[in-house]
Amino acid sequence: MSWRATVITLYPEMFPGPLGQSLAGRAMEQGIWSLEARQMREHGLGRHRAVDDTPFGGGAGMVLRADVVDAALNDCVDERPVVVLTPRGAPLDQQSVRRLAAGPGVVLLCGRFEGIDQRVIEARNLTEISIGDYILSGGETAALVLLDACVRLLPGVMGAMESAEEESFSHGLLEYPHYTRPAEWNGRAVPDILLSGNHAAIAAWRLAQSKAITRARRPDLWAAHVAGHPTTQV
Amino acid sequence: MSWRATVITLYPEMFPGPLGQSLAGRAMEQGIWSLEARQMREHGLGRHRAVDDTPFGGGAGMVLRADVVDAALNDCVDERPVVVLTPRGAPLDQQSVRRLAAGPGVVLLCGRFEGIDQRVIEARNLTEISIGDYILSGGETAALVLLDACVRLLPGVMGAMESAEEESFSHGLLEYPHYTRPAEWNGRAVPDILLSGNHAAIAAWRLAQSKAITRARRPDLWAAHVAGHPTTQV
Repeated sequence: MSWRATVITLYPEMFPGPLGQSLAGRAMEQGIWSLEARQMREHGLGRHRAVDDTPFGGGAGMVLRADVVDAALNDCVDERPVVVLTPRGAPLDQQSVRRLAAGPGVVLLCGRFEGIDQRVIEARNLTEISIGDYILSGGETAALVLLDACVRLLPGVMGAMESAEEESFSHGLLEYPHYTRPAEWNGRAVPDILLSGNHAAIAAWRLAQSKAITRARRPDLWAAHVAGHPTTQV
Repeated sequence: MSWRATVITLYPEMFPGPLGQSLAGRAMEQGIWSLEARQMREHGLGRHRAVDDTPFGGGAGMVLRADVVDAALNDCVDERPVVVLTPRGAPLDQQSVRRLAAGPGVVLLCGRFEGIDQRVIEARNLTEISIGDYILSGGETAALVLLDACVRLLPGVMGAMESAEEESFSHGLLEYPHYTRPAEWNGRAVPDILLSGNHAAIAAWRLAQSKAITRARRPDLWAAHVAGHPTTQV
């Protein structure tokens, strides 16, 4: 059984977009995953297939109707989790990506306008996920990001070596710096240690670099790392 | 002068992708912004136009060469900031989106494989930005997200009312719940207050909802909000 993604959107023509190429595109051709984009407007009301209306209580923008969203979901929900992409959601992290990738797939509901009527979110107990603390024109580019992150973890998509590398991120540290040929470029040399052939020393140097970068750039990740690894010597 | 985006990538065919539609697509047609995707491989080496090589010190994956990336940047840098999209970067937030949108545009460098040779990042003092704590197959979907977030803020892209609404996010709180017609759906009624016509009471209710949701879902944002608004009564 391949991993199945269904996207409910007002812009189905945005899919598969970038996911039709490269790693995700090849995996799709191989049948490792499938992507179906459904037009929410097919469940719109009246002659104009209206999907939204003005907010109760006043204010800017339009709100997606509960009845329309509910009908769109009725048409495609099964055992897969249903995720609403919204800045109000729980922040997406690599752990939730792994969990989604390990399941049967996902149904993604892309918000537009001001948001979605709260009642359908509550009635269906939808999972709200945010890909970051910024505002997008809609959930579509967020859906592409979430799917990109999941698909690369599906069995057969990455090689074994890349999969192993993946595990290194599970410590919650940022990546150490990378270097490749030429050994000297523009007067800048590669750190000597990387040319030493001493694998244990190289591993220790890389871990120290990861820790230093994480501590400097992301005090939040660093605090979580230290809390999770109380014996860590820095 | 329109806002100019240049993307340096191994997959230029992924652009404009979803940004050719909807809000961003219309703004592009109107000349409010432009997007050029450049093939990094044009600066690759030898008969096979190689852009990457194995990492010094060993390990999985390939690293983008400093000389190739440098040549690709030489070809398009001007007064615009150059951003590398990488999970090691500073987290993108709405404040950095606003800053980028207020400038002349952006040059985006999309990483692939294990990463980019550290020396070109340092030599050019490139800005590393992360759209979130998850791993993508490359910087391309992240570039689409960053551009989506910036373009909607360009003058003339959103209506005045939506722009005003944008400002409400500047308090660093998550959005209050939205409701629209019908007033009763599946046995669920809209909160009475929203039908009261009392605008001050509605504004107070919405602010209280925003605070409650932020405190429950995002202790990090809540702490920052309280620190920034020390007189806030909850």
